[in-house]
This record gives sequence, C-alpha cells and structure tokens, in this order.
Amino acid sequence: MHTSVLRPLRHAALVAMASIMTMPTAAAAAAAPSAAEQPASPRRLAIAIHGGAGVIAREQLGADGGVAYRQGLEAALDAGYAVLEAGGSSLDAVTTAVRLLEDNPLFNAGRGAVLAHDGRAYLDASIMSGKDLSAGAVTGVTTVRHPIDLARRVMEDSPHVMLSGEGAEEFAGLKGLERVPNDWFITPTRRQQLDRVLQGRSAPRNELQGLGTVGAVAVDSRGDVAAATSTGGMTNKRWGRIGDAPIIGAGTYANNASCAVSATGHGEYFIRSVVAHDICALVEYKGWSLARAAKEVVQGKLVQRGGEGGIIAVDPQGHLVLEFNSPGMFRGLRDSSGRRMVGIYED
Amino acid sequence: MHTSVLRPLRHAALVAMASIMTMPTAAAAAAAPSAAEQPASPRRLAIAIHGGAGVIAREQLGADGGVAYRQGLEAALDAGYAVLEAGGSSLDAVTTAVRLLEDNPLFNAGRGAVLAHDGRAYLDASIMSGKDLSAGAVTGVTTVRHPIDLARRVMEDSPHVMLSGEGAEEFAGLKGLERVPNDWFITPTRRQQLDRVLQGRSAPRNELQGLGTVGAVAVDSRGDVAAATSTGGMTNKRWGRIGDAPIIGAGTYANNASCAVSATGHGEYFIRSVVAHDICALVEYKGWSLARAAKEVVQGKLVQRGGEGGIIAVDPQGHLVLEFNSPGMFRGLRDSSGRRMVGIYED
Repeated sequence: MHTSVLRPLRHAALVAMASIMTMPTAAAAAAAPSAAEQPASPRRLAIAIHGGAGVIAREQLGADGGVAYRQGLEAALDAGYAVLEAGGSSLDAVTTAVRLLEDNPLFNAGRGAVLAHDGRAYLDASIMSGKDLSAGAVTGVTTVRHPIDLARRVMEDSPHVMLSGEGAEEFAGLKGLERVPNDWFITPTRRQQLDRVLQGRSAPRNELQGLGTVGAVAVDSRGDVAAATSTGGMTNKRWGRIGDAPIIGAGTYANNASCAVSATGHGEYFIRSVVAHDICALVEYKGWSLARAAKEVVQGKLVQRGGEGGIIAVDPQGHLVLEFNSPGMFRGLRDSSGRRMVGIYED
Repeated sequence: MHTSVLRPLRHAALVAMASIMTMPTAAAAAAAPSAAEQPASPRRLAIAIHGGAGVIAREQLGADGGVAYRQGLEAALDAGYAVLEAGGSSLDAVTTAVRLLEDNPLFNAGRGAVLAHDGRAYLDASIMSGKDLSAGAVTGVTTVRHPIDLARRVMEDSPHVMLSGEGAEEFAGLKGLERVPNDWFITPTRRQQLDRVLQGRSAPRNELQGLGTVGAVAVDSRGDVAAATSTGGMTNKRWGRIGDAPIIGAGTYANNASCAVSATGHGEYFIRSVVAHDICALVEYKGWSLARAAKEVVQGKLVQRGGEGGIIAVDPQGHLVLEFNSPGMFRGLRDSSGRRMVGIYED
C-alpha cells in the first residue's frame, strides 16, 4: 500500500505533538498515565519476519557469508517496526515489511522469485487482519510488482477473499497497482537454478526451494494482530501448483482471539496440516501458550508427517515465536521491550 | 474413480460368502462375535451429502415441487452408501456420491454449474482422507467432466495438493481423465440466471448462488473418514475468484482424530472462518461432540460474522451432523442404523 509509508509518518508527527502538549509541567507528568498506559503505545509492540526455511548451505549465502541476507532482513524488520512505533496498524506493519522483502532479489517473493517449469515467475500472497478476520489472497500473479499489495486490495476493495491468474491481474489493473513485465522478477541466479533442475543436475530441494516464502506477523498498540505471506512457490513448479502461502488457514492466519501466524516450508504438508489455523486453535481451545502450540505443530505434527519448514507467530500480548524444524530459517524479530535480532541458523 | 463401482461389488461378494461360511451351526453362531464386531462391518457406516444451502424459493424447485432434486439427492446418497455397505472406503463413497451430483444438471457442480462473468463454467473441487491427511484440490477447471476425480488424482498421483487453471487441465490430460467442451457444463437455466444478473434484473443471491456446492462426507467400516466438495462457484464471478470449496481447511477437511466436513455457502466467510478445520479443532481440542462443534461454528460464529450456509459432517464413530443457518439446504444422510432421509427445508 503506498499509504503505508505516509500514514505512519503522519501518526509519528501527531504522537510527537501529543508528547509535547501533555508534558508541560512536572505535575502534569505525574498525573499522566504510566508508560504502560500511554495512548501511543499502551501495549507491547512486536513484529517478526521470515525469509524462508530449509537447508541453507553456507556457500549459498554468498561471499559475504550472509551479510546481505541479514541486511535485507534488518531493513524489513525495522521498517515494519517503525510503522508500529509510530502508532500504525499491524496490517500496515506487515505490509511494509513484506513489500521490502518482495523487492529484495535475495528472497523468493516478488523480485527474485523462483521460476516455474515454463521459466516464468508466478507469485502468490495473502494477508489477514486479526481484528475482524478480513483476509485477501492472490495466486498465479505474473505482472504485479507487489503481490502483497494486491492481496490487501482484494481484502479491502473487493467482495472476495481469493483471486487467481489473469482475473487477479485484471483486478490489479482496475485498482491501478504498479505493474512490471514478468522479466522484472527474474534474476540470473533463479534462472540458473531452474536450468540446473531442468537439466537434472540438481533436485529442486537443493536450490533453496524450501526457502519458499517471505512473511511477517505483528501486533500493534491496539492489540490487533496481523499476518502476511508472499512467495514465488517452488522451483520448476508445474500444472498451476498452489502452495500454502496464499491459503488462509494454512500459510497465513490471524485472529485477535488467539494469534497471527505466517508459515514457510514444504507447502503441501502445510496445507494438509492447516498449520496457521491449527496453532491458533491450540491457543484458543486448549489455552496453551503460543510457544507450546507452535512447538506442537512444527516440531510434533509436521515432523511426524514429514513436513519441513517453520512459522513465525505473535499473540495480542506481544509474545513472539519463531519455530522451525529445518536446519535454518531466515528470520528476525523486534519488540518494544528492546529485543531485536535476525538469524539464519539455529542459535 | 472408475474403480469405485467395481471394487465394492467384489467386496460384497466376499462378504456374502463369509456370512455363509461362518454360520454353519447354532454353536458356531453363538461363538461368533456380536454383530457390532463382525469383520465385514465392525463399526457404524454413515454418509451424508449436500447440494447447496441458501434461500430456496418454492418456485425454483420446479413444477414437481422438488421431486427431481430429492431424487438426485437419493441417487447420490444410495450410491455412496452402497460403496460403504460393500466394504469400500469412505474415499470411494464420497467420490461416487459427488460424481453423481456433478453429472446432475440441477446442482451447481460439473454439469449445471453456475456461470462466470464471461459466460463459461469454471469448476473447483477438493477431497481429503482422514486416515493419512492426504488431500487434493483443483480450481478453475473448464474441460474436466468430473472435477472431483481430478482432485483425487492430484491427491493420489501428484506430489501436490492444489492445482489451478490451464495447468490443472494439462495434468488432467496426462492422467487421461474424461474431457468435455465447456458448453457441456452449461444448461439453459444457468445461462438465463447469468443473463438476468448481467442485465441487472436479479442479484446473484437470488439466483440460487448461495447454493454453491455439492459435497459428501462418510465413514467406512475401518473407521476412516473422508470428505469431498465440488462447485461451480458464484454466478457472475470475476477476476478468477476462488471460494471455499477447493480450500483444504475451509470447504473440506478430514481427520480421523476428529471428523470430516464438507461445507457450502457464502465462500468468502467460510474461508475467513476456516470452517471445516475449526469444527474438527473444537472436537479434538475441546472434546466437544460433533453436533456441538458444528452448531458453535455454523449457528454461532458464522451467523455473527454474516456468513450464510451450512455443513455436513461425520466422525469416526458414525455420528452425522447436518447444520445450516440458511432457510434451506439440499441434503441427505444414511447410516447402518437404518436411518435414511433427504431434505430441502428445515424439518
């Protein structure tokens, strides 16, 4: 959303003004609510992002040993957190973070997406608001620069939840979203990865294909949670294959009654396990902590069923969980308690 | 599946032979396990079907007052039940029932599907096995006579769960599924319904559009549950809209740990509520009966959120639930306790 950058700035200015106006004297300051009750930030703010999970070979990180990946994660994390800090919504925060990861050619979403069997990029994305369970998703997009923006437009400006293929492109045209030729998404690295797979010199699994997705979850100052996910899917995918990323309940789910989740991994297993909704259901119906619920699904059920990958999640209280059963997951988190980290392998 | 008719017949013959062989004398009969423990039918067999939920105007049922609809439901119900009775799997039972409803031009799936904005039929279907959580789904199919067969092939003969559009058609071609021209699906009634909507003479809701789907759930003699759903979607749908029918977790879900569910109604609300999985989660995580869980989701959550429609569900013990919050739902159930009914309105 082009407004997601402007709006937080407006909010930030208002917050700054409010701070000045409510702090003229020591007496007024004493009478003011405690820090935990400040209107601008009454709760813990928190955001987590991921850039895919799987087997991450050291040499695949490049000559700098992963510095560029870490910088990309930090940039998305901080941009999303800045939205929250300025009083913006969790929806704007996750949209902002995912847009940056879509533009970053290192990650498999937007520019830098893996390529399908026919050599083109087909993009999927979804977003959900925990406040009112509104949701939007798109699959098979080929010319929309930011698929997450299109998913959000579907959520906010259409009567539908999920649009696909040429129809989704037509809707993007009606809404004036930025379009690019399909070539714009394609990087030499992804072209080489597809060529190796097509020539039988590499299994898709060895080409960071498990690193299929980027995503973000956040909770804002109102306690509203949101989740967003975007992906190019699997290298060499055929037959219009749809993975878990655009499936509400599987790759993305958010509900203020429990939590918000964005998933990444072997999509077929994540669909069959309805991963995102299952974690939230364990929280809501069994009263489990988010950490326990995520562990049960990711380290228990998914491992038993053979599904490699991971999730990021947040609850309305600001608890963050980053859980993965693969050797690595590109990830980051930041919250208003001062925590800020990015990681690739297990700590 | 073309084997779903032959296989039950073979089983039926074996069952009949076994009955004769194990009952030669009164003594042997006394020593035999009770009826509830008979190997041929150790548990309760049960199947339920639906043909859509919504506002069903009496005049829309035709001059015979709905006899043709009831006959169509009975035929599908009995064919599916015959599979179970002959020792066949719940997967074969739901496939058999849904195939018949797809061929029946009265229901919005396969032949007789509602038409999209461009005047063509675009078909969605999904199927899931509660035994191993295997699943298959297709969306945007235009030439496959039985979309449910294609969903099942995706489940059994591909590494994927969900295929879409032209790619799904290509996969159907590779698997040799029966193809028809798109015109084959189109009935004069559906053409007139679309024309009325396009001319602004009728809102889609008044054209049985809420009656969007057919489906079946069943439990077999091994206690395995399965669910299947097939639809043409919404009249005048645009932009490649995908509803809940092909979404695992929303329109279809099956898990022996809880239940199997097939949904029908206003798809966008069903996706956002992850209806099928939510009912199963309430059963598994809260220990609720299937009836209570279905009521909570259909009469509670969906009504609060404005989502009209219904579900059919079965658990491994053979409990059947048919729950809808709309004025009517085409439906039927049959089980080995002797119950057999079809209905359109509330009883």
